[in-house]
Formats: sequence, C-alpha cells, structure tokens
Amino acid sequence: MTMPARPHIALLGLGLMGASLARALKARRLVRRLSGYAPSAATRARARALGLVDEVVRAPEACVRGADFVFLNMPVGQMEASARAIASALKPGAIVTDVGSVKRAPARFVRRALPAHIVYVPGHPIAGTEQTGPDAGFAELFENRFCVLTPRRGTERRALMAVRRLWEQMGARVIEMTPAAHDRLLALTSHLPHLAAYGLTATARRSRQSHKAIVNFSAGGFRDFTRIAASDPVMWRDIFLHNRDAVLAELARFEAQLKLLRTAIEQDDGAALLASFQSVRRLRREIVAAGQEEAAPDFGRRRASVKSRRAARS
Amino acid sequence: MTMPARPHIALLGLGLMGASLARALKARRLVRRLSGYAPSAATRARARALGLVDEVVRAPEACVRGADFVFLNMPVGQMEASARAIASALKPGAIVTDVGSVKRAPARFVRRALPAHIVYVPGHPIAGTEQTGPDAGFAELFENRFCVLTPRRGTERRALMAVRRLWEQMGARVIEMTPAAHDRLLALTSHLPHLAAYGLTATARRSRQSHKAIVNFSAGGFRDFTRIAASDPVMWRDIFLHNRDAVLAELARFEAQLKLLRTAIEQDDGAALLASFQSVRRLRREIVAAGQEEAAPDFGRRRASVKSRRAARS
Repeated sequence: MTMPARPHIALLGLGLMGASLARALKARRLVRRLSGYAPSAATRARARALGLVDEVVRAPEACVRGADFVFLNMPVGQMEASARAIASALKPGAIVTDVGSVKRAPARFVRRALPAHIVYVPGHPIAGTEQTGPDAGFAELFENRFCVLTPRRGTERRALMAVRRLWEQMGARVIEMTPAAHDRLLALTSHLPHLAAYGLTATARRSRQSHKAIVNFSAGGFRDFTRIAASDPVMWRDIFLHNRDAVLAELARFEAQLKLLRTAIEQDDGAALLASFQSVRRLRREIVAAGQEEAAPDFGRRRASVKSRRAARS
Repeated sequence: MTMPARPHIALLGLGLMGASLARALKARRLVRRLSGYAPSAATRARARALGLVDEVVRAPEACVRGADFVFLNMPVGQMEASARAIASALKPGAIVTDVGSVKRAPARFVRRALPAHIVYVPGHPIAGTEQTGPDAGFAELFENRFCVLTPRRGTERRALMAVRRLWEQMGARVIEMTPAAHDRLLALTSHLPHLAAYGLTATARRSRQSHKAIVNFSAGGFRDFTRIAASDPVMWRDIFLHNRDAVLAELARFEAQLKLLRTAIEQDDGAALLASFQSVRRLRREIVAAGQEEAAPDFGRRRASVKSRRAARS
C-alpha cells in the first residue's frame, strides 16, 4: 500500500473535531479531496454553508468511497455502527482511524466491524473545546497538542506511519501507547476531572440558594468547572460508560482524598490541610514548568499578560 | 465623621490583594497618602522596590497611625491578631475594612478586637488570581468584579457609604449581604470548587501512573483544576477552617452528587448520565448569558477569539 502525497480523506462526523480536521487539512493543503458526512441534515447544511469539505454526502458509505483515509469523528458509542456501515464501501488499502477519547473497548469493536484487509489505527488527539458543532471547528486546534495512537501489535507499519505523519503535518505531537495505558491515563487526567465538574455543577444546580446569586458569584472558582461541564453530553456519557472500570477506580481514589480533606476540616487539622495544599502546589508548578501552559494555551492565555490574568480567588 | 476626598489609606498586607489595592488606588488617584505594612521583610523590600506605596513601615501600629481607612489584607486566620495590634493606634474616625473570603466568624473577632468607637465594615472582593506576593498585584484586578460588604445592623451609614464608594471608584460592583448569606454562597461557588480542585490534584499526585505522563496529559481537563489548586495554601487553610460548617454541608451535597454519578456509571445507566449532563449544560449557558464570562474575563479570555479558544476535551 502506498499513500498518495495528497490523499483523498473522508470525515465521518462534522462537529468540533470533524470541522477542525477539515480546516486543518485544507489550511495546510494536506488533502487532494475532502468528503464529509454527518447524520444530521442541519449539520450537513451548515458544513456546506461553511465550505468545510469538497463534498457533503448523505450516507456514510458514499462518503468513504474512494477515500485513502477515513476519520471516525463521533462519540465512541457510535463508532462500531459507523464502522459496520462503511465496511463494504471502503476501497482496498484504505486506512481507518478515529479521534475517540476511549481506546480499549471501542477500538476492539471498530476493528471487529471492519474487513480484515483494512488497516485501522486508533487515535486520540488531546485537544478540544467545550463548543460543539461545525461552527466550532478551527484549523489550529491540534497545534502543539499531543495525539495518542494506540496501534495493535501487527498494525501495518506503513499505515501507522501515514497516520502519524498526517497528525504531525497538522501540528500535533504524536505518541504511541497501549490502549489500556491510554485509558488509565485519561481516566485520571481527563475523565475524572470532567466527572468532578459535572458533580460540582449538579451540586450548584440543585442548591436551594438563589440561582441568580450563584450565577453572579460563579467567578469565585465555580465558573471554571461549569466550562468543562459544558462539553458535549453524548460524548461524555459514552466516555464514562466505555471507560467504566478505569473511571470508577479513579473516582474511588478521588472520593478517598475528599474524605481526608473532610476529616481534616472536621478535626480543625490545619497542619494536615496546609501540608496537602503545599504539595499539590508543587505539582502545579511542574505542569507550568513542563510548558503545558505555554505549549497548549487555552482561551488565549498565551496572549494574556500577567497583569490581565484574573481568576477565581475566593 | 467626614472622609476627605482623597484619604490617607493604610494597607496591612502587601500580597496579591494589598498590592492590587495599592496599584488601583494609585492609578485612579484615589488616595492622598498610602502606607503599607507586611510581616515579611522580603515582602516589604519588594514593595519598596516596586514603589507600591508612599511608605513601607515595619510595624502595623505605625502603618495605621493617622490613616483614614485601614485595609486588612491577610488570611482570615490572622485578622483578629492584626486588629488587636492596631487597636490603640487607630485615629478617631478611622474606618477599618478587610478583604477576607469568610465573613461570619472572622468579622466577629475583628469587631471584638477593635475599640467601640472605630467603625468596621467587613468586605470581600470576588477577585484574585492563583498568583501570590507583591509582584502579582495589578490595578485592574477589581474592575467589573463583585465586592460584597457585610455590615452589621447599626454600622455607621456614612462609613459604609465611604467604603462602598472606594470600591466603586476602583471599578467594583458593590453589593451588601448578611455575613451568613455570604458564607453560605461562597461555600458553594468558591470554597467547594477549590476543595474539589485540591482533592483532584492530590489524587493525581498520589497516583502510581507516570508522573511525567500526567503532567504531559494535563491538557485534557486536569490542568484547569491544578490552576485553582495553586492558590495560597495558608489563605485556603484558613478559609476552610473558618467557614467549616457551610463548607462541610456543601461538600456533603457534592459527595452525594458524585455517588449518583458513580451509581449511574456502575449500572450502565446512560439515560441518567445524559439527563444530568444536559441539565448542567443549561446552567453553564446561564452563566455565559449573565455576562460573567465577559464582565469578568479570566486569563485574557476576553481577548481570545473563538478560534483561539482551545480547551480540555478529553
């Protein structure tokens, strides 16, 4: 199998990720032809209006016909059905990849749904915003962001290199990992924080305190959590259900930490609180030192001078 | 008591808040004379080098001598001792205020430590960053931010108006509240989110997973939490201990919400997860609609176009 320098790429799903892929591939002239499909007629119409791809088609199998690469850009709960829908329409030598946030079980289902001769390279760009839909996409989304590939042993090497190269051309930093390592790591660094944000926001929503006051005072720290709790609900439902064991394990560890904090507050144990807060501050410094703030700026932080940096205090 | 149009103001504490007050008061020419004190010699030297105030003094009682307004800018656990230290040096008619994040118990202690003829107006600007120290201060910190005043019944009206006017002149939106209402509201919108952030960061720190991988993958959502967990440890220890009952009550409500989420994940109850996520999304929209994102931009978000907005996704 040889990949053309500028391949024909099919994007199944034209939300934030699909639209960002379309814009990144177009902006960097990485593609000869770009086909797009979305299950919703409204999304298809919007993708046409935005000129995201060269052709917007109404059926997934028509979208992938003749494509060298196929990207599955949908919630992980829908990937198996999508793979099954396109299985017989894929051209020999086509490479299928995806952007799903869970890799173990979903990738197994996708692999099983595809013909044996099709190479599938599971992927996950660690990038996004809380925005959804085709209008949310932008060409720079993947720049300087990590993209994880979780190939099985035996994944055809040239296909793996082709997918890697495509992500690198879009500005991403590609690393390989086992599906299990990916799912454990993301359960801690992404899935658990989102679960906490959902829990916090639900706590506020169910409060008997003035709704208006809560909204007005959200600048005190709460607002940061509502932002990440604003992400796509279907996507996150699927993530929690498909990475259940790892998420529940991290949640149990988090609950234990909350219990330690609770006990320290109940017992007026200022020394324990202080020691805990000082140690987490060190981890923060490492994250800043590692350049994650600079390399992957969120919300224009890169542009903000120290003086314009205002945040939740209390 | 009549306040001069441009009063002499004493700032006890020259960290983020004290330094921001100094810069705001100077930038807007609201002050005739500005005196500053900090317990640490290093902070005093830095405040001198930065030219934050007209005079940096080595003792709190010397700092407040002759001042019309005195701001207590220290962790709430230190306020009572500070009030006691200055009690006999305050000039008749001086107004004492503070910026503490808890208002019920600490304000009672401060009131008790001051002479009866001194008017004390407890305050709390809902503004800050995770930075600390005199270098972190900036003149715009309070612009468009809420500032809560929690006067007791009988607080001298002219003193209350004078404090209100000063905050308004620094750009803040002043509202009055009872100390109990303030502490309950902030327990939910600020203290609980910070506690969750501390718990999450501690969970990551104690993980057996690769420390480096956690740091590298913090862009997936975790990083936002480490930022708010980077705030001043002493300040936050004091907040949790001084607002114990309200914080523990909100923590219990949060733990109950986490348990509901846990059960839904354990039971593969996608419908419950989806319903919960959709409802919290609505709250987020209200916060955005209420202009909290625009009115109180954090980290330069105001400047960031939609296209440059990148955030945690998964």
